[in-house]
Amino acid sequence: MQELGVVHRRIARADRAATDRLAAFGVATVHEALGRLGLMAPSMRPIYAGAQVSGTAVTVLLHPGDNWMLHVAAEQIQPGDIVVAGLTSPCTDGYFGDLLATSFKARGARALVIDAGVRDLRTLTEMRFPVWSTAVSAKGTIKATPGSVNVPVVCAGAAVNPGDVIVADVDGVVVVRRESAAEIAKASAARIAKEEQSRDKLRKGELGLDFYGLRDKLVKAGVEWVDE
Amino acid sequence: MQELGVVHRRIARADRAATDRLAAFGVATVHEALGRLGLMAPSMRPIYAGAQVSGTAVTVLLHPGDNWMLHVAAEQIQPGDIVVAGLTSPCTDGYFGDLLATSFKARGARALVIDAGVRDLRTLTEMRFPVWSTAVSAKGTIKATPGSVNVPVVCAGAAVNPGDVIVADVDGVVVVRRESAAEIAKASAARIAKEEQSRDKLRKGELGLDFYGLRDKLVKAGVEWVDE
Amino acid sequence: MQELGVVHRRIARADRAATDRLAAFGVATVHEALGRLGLMAPSMRPIYAGAQVSGTAVTVLLHPGDNWMLHVAAEQIQPGDIVVAGLTSPCTDGYFGDLLATSFKARGARALVIDAGVRDLRTLTEMRFPVWSTAVSAKGTIKATPGSVNVPVVCAGAAVNPGDVIVADVDGVVVVRRESAAEIAKASAARIAKEEQSRDKLRKGELGLDFYGLRDKLVKAGVEWVDE
Amino acid sequence: MQELGVVHRRIARADRAATDRLAAFGVATVHEALGRLGLMAPSMRPIYAGAQVSGTAVTVLLHPGDNWMLHVAAEQIQPGDIVVAGLTSPCTDGYFGDLLATSFKARGARALVIDAGVRDLRTLTEMRFPVWSTAVSAKGTIKATPGSVNVPVVCAGAAVNPGDVIVADVDGVVVVRRESAAEIAKASAARIAKEEQSRDKLRKGELGLDFYGLRDKLVKAGVEWVDE
Amino acid sequence: MQELGVVHRRIARADRAATDRLAAFGVATVHEALGRLGLMAPSMRPIYAGAQVSGTAVTVLLHPGDNWMLHVAAEQIQPGDIVVAGLTSPCTDGYFGDLLATSFKARGARALVIDAGVRDLRTLTEMRFPVWSTAVSAKGTIKATPGSVNVPVVCAGAAVNPGDVIVADVDGVVVVRRESAAEIAKASAARIAKEEQSRDKLRKGELGLDFYGLRDKLVKAGVEWVDE
Amino acid sequence: MQELGVVHRRIARADRAATDRLAAFGVATVHEALGRLGLMAPSMRPIYAGAQVSGTAVTVLLHPGDNWMLHVAAEQIQPGDIVVAGLTSPCTDGYFGDLLATSFKARGARALVIDAGVRDLRTLTEMRFPVWSTAVSAKGTIKATPGSVNVPVVCAGAAVNPGDVIVADVDGVVVVRRESAAEIAKASAARIAKEEQSRDKLRKGELGLDFYGLRDKLVKAGVEWVDE
Repeated sequence: MQELGVVHRRIARADRAATDRLAAFGVATVHEALGRLGLMAPSMRPIYAGAQVSGTAVTVLLHPGDNWMLHVAAEQIQPGDIVVAGLTSPCTDGYFGDLLATSFKARGARALVIDAGVRDLRTLTEMRFPVWSTAVSAKGTIKATPGSVNVPVVCAGAAVNPGDVIVADVDGVVVVRRESAAEIAKASAARIAKEEQSRDKLRKGELGLDFYGLRDKLVKAGVEWVDE
Repeated sequence: MQELGVVHRRIARADRAATDRLAAFGVATVHEALGRLGLMAPSMRPIYAGAQVSGTAVTVLLHPGDNWMLHVAAEQIQPGDIVVAGLTSPCTDGYFGDLLATSFKARGARALVIDAGVRDLRTLTEMRFPVWSTAVSAKGTIKATPGSVNVPVVCAGAAVNPGDVIVADVDGVVVVRRESAAEIAKASAARIAKEEQSRDKLRKGELGLDFYGLRDKLVKAGVEWVDE
Repeated sequence: MQELGVVHRRIARADRAATDRLAAFGVATVHEALGRLGLMAPSMRPIYAGAQVSGTAVTVLLHPGDNWMLHVAAEQIQPGDIVVAGLTSPCTDGYFGDLLATSFKARGARALVIDAGVRDLRTLTEMRFPVWSTAVSAKGTIKATPGSVNVPVVCAGAAVNPGDVIVADVDGVVVVRRESAAEIAKASAARIAKEEQSRDKLRKGELGLDFYGLRDKLVKAGVEWVDE
Repeated sequence: MQELGVVHRRIARADRAATDRLAAFGVATVHEALGRLGLMAPSMRPIYAGAQVSGTAVTVLLHPGDNWMLHVAAEQIQPGDIVVAGLTSPCTDGYFGDLLATSFKARGARALVIDAGVRDLRTLTEMRFPVWSTAVSAKGTIKATPGSVNVPVVCAGAAVNPGDVIVADVDGVVVVRRESAAEIAKASAARIAKEEQSRDKLRKGELGLDFYGLRDKLVKAGVEWVDE
Repeated sequence: MQELGVVHRRIARADRAATDRLAAFGVATVHEALGRLGLMAPSMRPIYAGAQVSGTAVTVLLHPGDNWMLHVAAEQIQPGDIVVAGLTSPCTDGYFGDLLATSFKARGARALVIDAGVRDLRTLTEMRFPVWSTAVSAKGTIKATPGSVNVPVVCAGAAVNPGDVIVADVDGVVVVRRESAAEIAKASAARIAKEEQSRDKLRKGELGLDFYGLRDKLVKAGVEWVDE
Repeated sequence: MQELGVVHRRIARADRAATDRLAAFGVATVHEALGRLGLMAPSMRPIYAGAQVSGTAVTVLLHPGDNWMLHVAAEQIQPGDIVVAGLTSPCTDGYFGDLLATSFKARGARALVIDAGVRDLRTLTEMRFPVWSTAVSAKGTIKATPGSVNVPVVCAGAAVNPGDVIVADVDGVVVVRRESAAEIAKASAARIAKEEQSRDKLRKGELGLDFYGLRDKLVKAGVEWVDE
């Protein structure tokens, strides 16, 4: 059950070294290594191009139009964390701007991932504080209803537990379970190595059709090549 | 009542100096100073990054697929104006391109804000003529049905009167009533000053939780901190 | 009838010279020259700014979550082609990434236009392989169900036949029928020339209202100018 | 300017007899009589089929997730009123259910029109209290931030002033300015009478093409009839 | 190429008997018989429950906010036809109401399928004239720009040629190519017969897992059943 | 972590009696009793009006365009269960029709809740097998990629564990954690009793403003009543 009005101060975080390695692989590769699970919805987009990060999740549960718990979450941030905010119902308001970004950055946060709106994009971009959000809005929020910090949340369709690894780039945001960070880092590296070989062949004009052995399967599936 | 087939040539415009000061504060700050009223919907987005403007509204009421009144509006533009176009029903067509932009710019317009599509984005960007729109489309429009110029319109969910101040940046577009320009400029400046103090504290790692005095309220609201 | 499980190897392509001339005119001008037909929906957007291309269509029919036929299409690409992919039902998955882009580029493709998601945007952008898509998603796809290559498809609301000309830029994507390439190139050039004259007048502050002769029509349509 | 924190107790309401006549004409006819202005967005839908009402507007300005001012509005309702609620930012929460409906009905309200969600649809339907809304959601709301009652609002894209006439049926919701109720009722009646004549002709198989005199215009516009 | 300003008076229609048989099979079955091609987008919905029809397509190409060509199409309707309207760009306006429905019905049309809005839903429902549309709106349209009648159109993502068969019910709308009507009717009937056998088994509690032989494939695909 | 390719045969189900009591309270009341957590997104809608159910969740994880695991889930259904299906990426295809409904019903399922499309609505309605879905589509699905049964899933934004209680009616779908069924049933009953008292007062014309004691709070929050 999602808990309301609770702030968990002690959470187990994913292995730091494994977490930090994941950023470089990128979201698409990590998502493949995960068996294609854990991706947030395509509506989750970066506010500026070029950021590519990984970190451990501090989760926040927020109500529509109310960013109170983002202030509470700030205190729970440790260097290397990424704050992940889910909502109890859809809202496009601007929950986060340059003041909170200054605070989050000072505490060591690497990014914010929020299923709602953010604002002050010019300053956030100048600060290079990366944010993935589902909206942009100048509209501020109130501080009236308690949510929670470090409870399981759903963010843009993905379940996130405190301490999980978040990987985010221009392709989107993916969640890696806390215990799997090292295993997924290894699988991602293997995948990258394998893809490099394919890339070489493809660059020379070879066809995946041939070296992936797809032709026979296509014929069996009933595909016909016709010359008219 | 929205009037059809009328072009108001004489409108009272907001105070020029106050209008011009508002751009620098940005949409988020001005919107706060307004008590969080007057913001257009988040679907209203700039066609290129970096523009931040304020100006007095010349309003236009358009029909779906028909940009006739934008040509009529051109004549009513005075230097420092921003053209604001609302529609009688939703349409993504490209109402505005580089020819109209050339004309608007020659008349002294600072920007276009339109609840519809625009086109020729490459040229508009090269010209640095800023546009906020709810769509991009290459599809042109006809000139068949009279709308109006300088009547009250609704644009992306916000009511706009001729002569009101429009402030637009990467966070969106906000409307300031004509009579309030000076007052809102003053309130915005005060807000900016106050935020600067908070920013300093946050930069040093202080928590808003503490200096905004949020802890007690959280406890009263039933929030618990737990260590497991 | 759309055909399933067929790969047409021989298709008639639009005239190369005419096809290549169309890129420079841009989508908005070509679409006007076409009588405002053939435009894809505004949801079709470029993955990075600045690309402007034309080419001959190699078409692909895909199923949700299945990119098998993109591999098959690679073999049918000739230098100067643009691959156009339609779907049997809506899907945001990432059908295309840097490996397929490497292959398409090696075969001479100029771009991909797909009514679905793509991924590896950072690498695609670095490679300068232009893509227009209706979504971005890190989620990969399977190879299970045969679609077709070089059959008529519907892509983002526009009907595309193999060999048709595709023109794409920041304003969107438009389709020119194979037989019409030369005629549309000529009409586009004429339109550009005519617009240049208008641009000069507008730059000097003349009004379209006057030199397009719109005033009389407005009066006949019942528009009134009032001074209060 | 939209005012915050104000409840206007005395508003001028549209003429009762004219207001009451408008329901029977239906939204499409009234909207035509208005020159096609004042219609709310198509996202505004009735919660059950068959209701067709008109009444005078008591307006409410609400914040996301906060229905406090609906309770305040209840006191301002007079028999024959329709409550019209606009929001400061989009929200799908269920602002209104069977308790508020019981209260509104007891005060004499004829309907609710709200640019947000409602709940308890089963009971609302049994009570035959008609509601037009842009969402359905079981999620309740808080009472924390003051909005206003009987100030100008924008609801689903239409500007509504207190005392205006609201007409709503299965085709949507339209706003008639307070002063125009009688004039629009008259124009609607004339339109209905005229349409009845057309309906008779069309029923016999005559073509609008002929008795509206459209053929000549089509030929002038360049339309060709071809037999192959 | 889609043609503008043309009305084709002579079109070949699908076989009448085969066309008429298709209604009873329903859209889901016919779509399966077609190899899962030809379905319109899920945004295409019936205006009232219970209608299930088939007929031959009279196609119309319309512009945003302009229903002129629906009047032109009326003359081309023969008993047993279904009018199918595609748009040059998205529009929610109400293109069709009870007057046009009276005319279409008098000419023998069985339904309208339109990628836009319709109005007068109460009367259309009372008349039992079935309509599938992508929006409902009271907003009327103008008669200014020629489109075409009986040219190939794209409607809600599906390509439709004049004379094709349209099948529509509560599940959506599907297009059968003119030449294939008899073949698809036969295939649909076979499919219905086969499904009846499955239904009997399933009713008795047998599992598709067993009689479709899915268990082995699942095991080969790596699925595991676990008891904890 | 969501598991792929696993079918859990033994799951703990919520208390039957408590589960069965929850239907009658309705989704809005149960959601309030839950502290406003656990509601699925408003895009989740019933396929026909009037159904109101509760049951224990058998969960399914599906891929886009692939309903294989619904057949696998059928075997795990026990009388009183509701099947809840989440997707790895958004899809509107029709995953479920009358054959699967026959099977599910024979096994004792009370309903299906699916974050995707369904078809055969006419038959499903005649069978009175209630379904909540986010789309309607006649398009069938394949059986190619293993998902899972009885693993934690996210469905329309809500996290669901196997054995949890699902309550669904015209207001939407809410999830009650397995262990909380009895407690929430009790809290719901208390809420219903309390509301009945309020309803009586409201019916007599008393104002919530008075008996909820809202007036003082409004004054403190700065609300003013004005008579002009």
